[in-house]
Amino acid sequence: MNTFGNIFRLTTFGESHGAAIGGVVDGMPPGIDIDMDFIQAELARRRPGQSRLTTARKEADQVELLSGVFEGKSTGQPIGFIVRNENQHSQDYENLRDVFRPSHADYTYWTKYGIRDHRGGGRSSARETIARVVGGALAKLVLRQLGIRVTAWTQQVGPIACDRDYTQLDLSQIEQNDVRCPDPVKAQQMADLILQVKADGDTIGGVIAGVIEGCPAGLGEPAFGKLHAMLGAAMLSINAVKGFEYGDGFAMAERRGSEVKDEFMAESPAPGDACDAAMRHTAASLSLATRTNHSGGIQGGISNGQPIPFRVAFKPVATLLMPQQTFDIHGNPVTINPRGRHDPCVLPRAVPIVEAMGAMVVLDAHLQHLACRA
Amino acid sequence: MNTFGNIFRLTTFGESHGAAIGGVVDGMPPGIDIDMDFIQAELARRRPGQSRLTTARKEADQVELLSGVFEGKSTGQPIGFIVRNENQHSQDYENLRDVFRPSHADYTYWTKYGIRDHRGGGRSSARETIARVVGGALAKLVLRQLGIRVTAWTQQVGPIACDRDYTQLDLSQIEQNDVRCPDPVKAQQMADLILQVKADGDTIGGVIAGVIEGCPAGLGEPAFGKLHAMLGAAMLSINAVKGFEYGDGFAMAERRGSEVKDEFMAESPAPGDACDAAMRHTAASLSLATRTNHSGGIQGGISNGQPIPFRVAFKPVATLLMPQQTFDIHGNPVTINPRGRHDPCVLPRAVPIVEAMGAMVVLDAHLQHLACRA
Amino acid sequence: MNTFGNIFRLTTFGESHGAAIGGVVDGMPPGIDIDMDFIQAELARRRPGQSRLTTARKEADQVELLSGVFEGKSTGQPIGFIVRNENQHSQDYENLRDVFRPSHADYTYWTKYGIRDHRGGGRSSARETIARVVGGALAKLVLRQLGIRVTAWTQQVGPIACDRDYTQLDLSQIEQNDVRCPDPVKAQQMADLILQVKADGDTIGGVIAGVIEGCPAGLGEPAFGKLHAMLGAAMLSINAVKGFEYGDGFAMAERRGSEVKDEFMAESPAPGDACDAAMRHTAASLSLATRTNHSGGIQGGISNGQPIPFRVAFKPVATLLMPQQTFDIHGNPVTINPRGRHDPCVLPRAVPIVEAMGAMVVLDAHLQHLACRA
Amino acid sequence: MNTFGNIFRLTTFGESHGAAIGGVVDGMPPGIDIDMDFIQAELARRRPGQSRLTTARKEADQVELLSGVFEGKSTGQPIGFIVRNENQHSQDYENLRDVFRPSHADYTYWTKYGIRDHRGGGRSSARETIARVVGGALAKLVLRQLGIRVTAWTQQVGPIACDRDYTQLDLSQIEQNDVRCPDPVKAQQMADLILQVKADGDTIGGVIAGVIEGCPAGLGEPAFGKLHAMLGAAMLSINAVKGFEYGDGFAMAERRGSEVKDEFMAESPAPGDACDAAMRHTAASLSLATRTNHSGGIQGGISNGQPIPFRVAFKPVATLLMPQQTFDIHGNPVTINPRGRHDPCVLPRAVPIVEAMGAMVVLDAHLQHLACRA
Repeated sequence: MNTFGNIFRLTTFGESHGAAIGGVVDGMPPGIDIDMDFIQAELARRRPGQSRLTTARKEADQVELLSGVFEGKSTGQPIGFIVRNENQHSQDYENLRDVFRPSHADYTYWTKYGIRDHRGGGRSSARETIARVVGGALAKLVLRQLGIRVTAWTQQVGPIACDRDYTQLDLSQIEQNDVRCPDPVKAQQMADLILQVKADGDTIGGVIAGVIEGCPAGLGEPAFGKLHAMLGAAMLSINAVKGFEYGDGFAMAERRGSEVKDEFMAESPAPGDACDAAMRHTAASLSLATRTNHSGGIQGGISNGQPIPFRVAFKPVATLLMPQQTFDIHGNPVTINPRGRHDPCVLPRAVPIVEAMGAMVVLDAHLQHLACRA
Repeated sequence: MNTFGNIFRLTTFGESHGAAIGGVVDGMPPGIDIDMDFIQAELARRRPGQSRLTTARKEADQVELLSGVFEGKSTGQPIGFIVRNENQHSQDYENLRDVFRPSHADYTYWTKYGIRDHRGGGRSSARETIARVVGGALAKLVLRQLGIRVTAWTQQVGPIACDRDYTQLDLSQIEQNDVRCPDPVKAQQMADLILQVKADGDTIGGVIAGVIEGCPAGLGEPAFGKLHAMLGAAMLSINAVKGFEYGDGFAMAERRGSEVKDEFMAESPAPGDACDAAMRHTAASLSLATRTNHSGGIQGGISNGQPIPFRVAFKPVATLLMPQQTFDIHGNPVTINPRGRHDPCVLPRAVPIVEAMGAMVVLDAHLQHLACRA
Repeated sequence: MNTFGNIFRLTTFGESHGAAIGGVVDGMPPGIDIDMDFIQAELARRRPGQSRLTTARKEADQVELLSGVFEGKSTGQPIGFIVRNENQHSQDYENLRDVFRPSHADYTYWTKYGIRDHRGGGRSSARETIARVVGGALAKLVLRQLGIRVTAWTQQVGPIACDRDYTQLDLSQIEQNDVRCPDPVKAQQMADLILQVKADGDTIGGVIAGVIEGCPAGLGEPAFGKLHAMLGAAMLSINAVKGFEYGDGFAMAERRGSEVKDEFMAESPAPGDACDAAMRHTAASLSLATRTNHSGGIQGGISNGQPIPFRVAFKPVATLLMPQQTFDIHGNPVTINPRGRHDPCVLPRAVPIVEAMGAMVVLDAHLQHLACRA
Repeated sequence: MNTFGNIFRLTTFGESHGAAIGGVVDGMPPGIDIDMDFIQAELARRRPGQSRLTTARKEADQVELLSGVFEGKSTGQPIGFIVRNENQHSQDYENLRDVFRPSHADYTYWTKYGIRDHRGGGRSSARETIARVVGGALAKLVLRQLGIRVTAWTQQVGPIACDRDYTQLDLSQIEQNDVRCPDPVKAQQMADLILQVKADGDTIGGVIAGVIEGCPAGLGEPAFGKLHAMLGAAMLSINAVKGFEYGDGFAMAERRGSEVKDEFMAESPAPGDACDAAMRHTAASLSLATRTNHSGGIQGGISNGQPIPFRVAFKPVATLLMPQQTFDIHGNPVTINPRGRHDPCVLPRAVPIVEAMGAMVVLDAHLQHLACRA
């Protein structure tokens, strides 16, 4: 399905070479100032052609909000929006019309639907994430008022990793380089690697790290709606993602309980500074912080008020600018030699997408939480 | 929310020390033979007290199906079921009534709801997963007819890992030891470690690996309903899970596209052997296999017919049988020294839970797929 | 599907002659006193054998809550519950095993599922509504705190109608007679008619009227989630219901706009007495009442603070105690002559079911409303 | 919420005086010929200014499909679409900015959201139904292949009613007059009445009748997803609707069971001509018709293969071109004297909207049914 979320819901549509990418945000709280410059700036962070590290496809990616806003404020009604596609080179794909590219979704779409738009990956193109960035930007406008921040950065490109975590990094440096890594030395190494890979006609994978800060205790649902399960589903739904972990993640598999327990420490002033709206709905008469945060800010699926760090693994893009053997829809072997404009590494452009998905998950959890008490 | 799935839906209820754990399976296809012995055997794999590696709590975990079955066959109507709780020692928890145990959900439930059942973890107890195993067993009865198998095993306990993957292991050996690791040498090492940890009053984490075999091409939905996103959400909703990856997972972050592309090879006889029901709904006139499976059987969120391997990281259980500092609901510091019957390592008992969630995801995707073509 | 509602959700299961009828209420607000006597009293209003006007089937209909309640209060966790079936006479149905009774669901279930539990109507039996009454009783416990009341009564049985509406009736008289009609003269006429119909082995239809009072302005969603659309869906999902109208309903089709406009009048003290919880979420700085209420308390799908009157049409029960021609599953003509214990008129027992569905709709709308503002 | 349906889902957005009305259809089956002329013709049936009986607002209501269609066929991907608003006269509403018009949604939106777009009714305008007509047209393109037809007509305007039902009328005459009543004599009387009402600055209500033909047995879900409950919810979500009934509807309340039982008669050739796709999923080895159809083609919430007749009551439009007393948002009494372009009677233009909602419900039920058997 093409809808995400429970209360704050994003529905997306659009193909890479169709008329437009767009979507509908339902459940947007009313009375929020709609900062169009901010929304467009978020799209600019995801836009192709923004640096020499990305595809050369040039798209303005100008968004038009079609509804749900009145005199600059949200009205609580659904916000429909579109971004016209402009710089398609559909003819680049004509020779791929009947061919299944390896490690692409060509074969699976064809098997599922018996028909597919082969141009630029059609619906499976990462251009779909434009709609997510718009949805995420709207969510961020609400979260801003609640004091909640979702921040992501490129933590690893191929074997080059920035091992320091959010407590040790200056996150204000993320946007200071094209890679979106807050460690300038690592960022330079990553950029060099990406350019080398690009020169080889190859691609490279990586990891994006993120952290949710200012999240009040109490968000998330027990059982199947655990906050990190929603977060994981959100991240895994992004193109090219192969893994998700939060808190100490996979590393916790090697640890003893005594090593990773997060002990409480009393917090001075009681509830409410961070998020009055949420606090209205809790019976909490005190607020406790933890000394450590191995758990990643969530216990039993519900936030505990600590930061929520997470990591998302991306595979290398499947489009390689080199000859490859494959088959066409008639079962005949063919050799393809893709040309065109492709990202050697999606990480830098995926940073705002990860943030967008995270922002929508947290806002949705917040709104759901408001409905859990009469 | 306490409901999982879209067409095949499981709703669960119940607390650790309440009257019963139970649930409702909605969307069960009609005409399926309901093999009660199989369902009960699946519960036995999850049951406490099954070996010296687990908690000593003794529960028969006898399930009663209350509806939706007529003369041994499913009718397509909802299957309600309950498992009575019998061996609670609620008094063991009386001194924890007002106390927040570190790294447990005590504090977060209390913050969210203003009230909690403190006995045995209440709703946050892993006893809730009984209902998942029942739901998964019902799903497996359907998948069996479709030729789809979901298999999981203990791959890692603490630092002891079985590095061979599903292509190199004899999965029929999984149930031959208490740890549920198909490698008997590693299984013995893992068991020894668990017993050592237990003797220390400590706990240990680990990784469960799984693989879905016989899954036809075409399952899963683009955008937000990607098959691996649903699988990830399912796994992350299991108690104590901290991470999920599929295919080559996080390791793919370090690789180049040219190293991990999965080339097709023609498959001899065309569609349909695996799953006629699904095939009815595809326009596929041929079927292609891949030489390698770095992608993990899914492209663009849709299965390609190859096996789907995945890994799930579990943290060490939070209940430690040693003194710990914490706070009560009045903000007063207290020292707790938990006694009782706890698992030093959840991995062996979590294997059937992972399989159950996987089975429900795949069956749900199959049923959804049937509805995607008129 | 067997789940109703968005935030406050009821899932039901069970057949007439199966082990039990039951359900799960998810989204119950925490901290609510669970008045078991009240819940059981609601079931008693629906119970068979309660008067000479109903079926003679004797059922205690004793409900057991299995979870979600701790020390007498709701915890916010799902409330599983069951009511055991006790007084089945399944042998009465043995000769109907392969027969399609006219105007019953026998044929449609068989066509849809290829299998059916023929005993007592199986899943299509009105015994399923037991679970609705339990769900409605839990909803009423919450609504009571919010000052919202849902009241229903038998307005019409066959041609005998009580034409006065809620403004002209003493609703406290509803439970003073077996028919549940607040007009004692009409009630007597209705009872006489039902007994006559029963003596004839026949059945008779009717209309239940209801009114929601104390509902604050602002509940309901625009477009597809209109409050009256949810209410209508709820009522139409009750067995034997053929029509729904609210406000002036079908009579409005004959009227001019100038005749049915509801003009406002200023209301003295401004917001909030009725429902502070809802009011927390409105920006309303004043509150207006209307002089008339042709619209039925809802404008554009959203409540306006006035009472919400509605009517629900019931067909006569399909089970007739007289010989009838029909066919079996092999296409052979057969004559059936049903015996057994059946209601000549469902109206008296359907009154609490209508109230239950109404209560769940309003509570769900209230909880949804809480989530519409950040 | 602004999404309708389970598998075939329509999400809508847009205000009367905003940039555009639009929506997203998700779950459109692939491979369907997208007949743009048909879609546009359906919009023309709903378009303002189509005859002297409707509002004079002139709108081309030209729809643009933005995605989900490739080389003239649906791809199974979401179809985003927009219809630009062109002929707004927003200044006509400036004096109503702070005023609550009687029997409109002005007050309820303001109470719920604290902000509203007052221009032309904003989101509560019936212009939202443009998106429903597009969604319904797409559904009809699929139903056409399945042999299912949904037809509606104006049955009553004020006191003038066409009492003959679908078995007695020539439905091909519906589009032969501006009122959309298949009885030409009644149509003329209705038209005369509407013009009289219009001259008075008043409005008038009415009833639209509809029938679903060619619907195979087996569609609809027991319990809460009954086919008529979904149909009722769909109709009640249309602006100005006050009631819904199907089969003999409210008239059944007056009848005895023996009078309205629908006896079966054997049908000659067994399953499948109408709808092979559905039949693939039934175990039905024979097919039975009924002699009468009091039940309205549905038993126990599931279709039985007979036509499904229904009726929908519309109130008179609330906008009167005459002076009225009311209040503004400050609680001050004001007199309004609306001018502008309004429908004296919505019935003629609502016919395609009723058909659209009916078509989406039936297609959704069909697709859901495909998923009920493995």
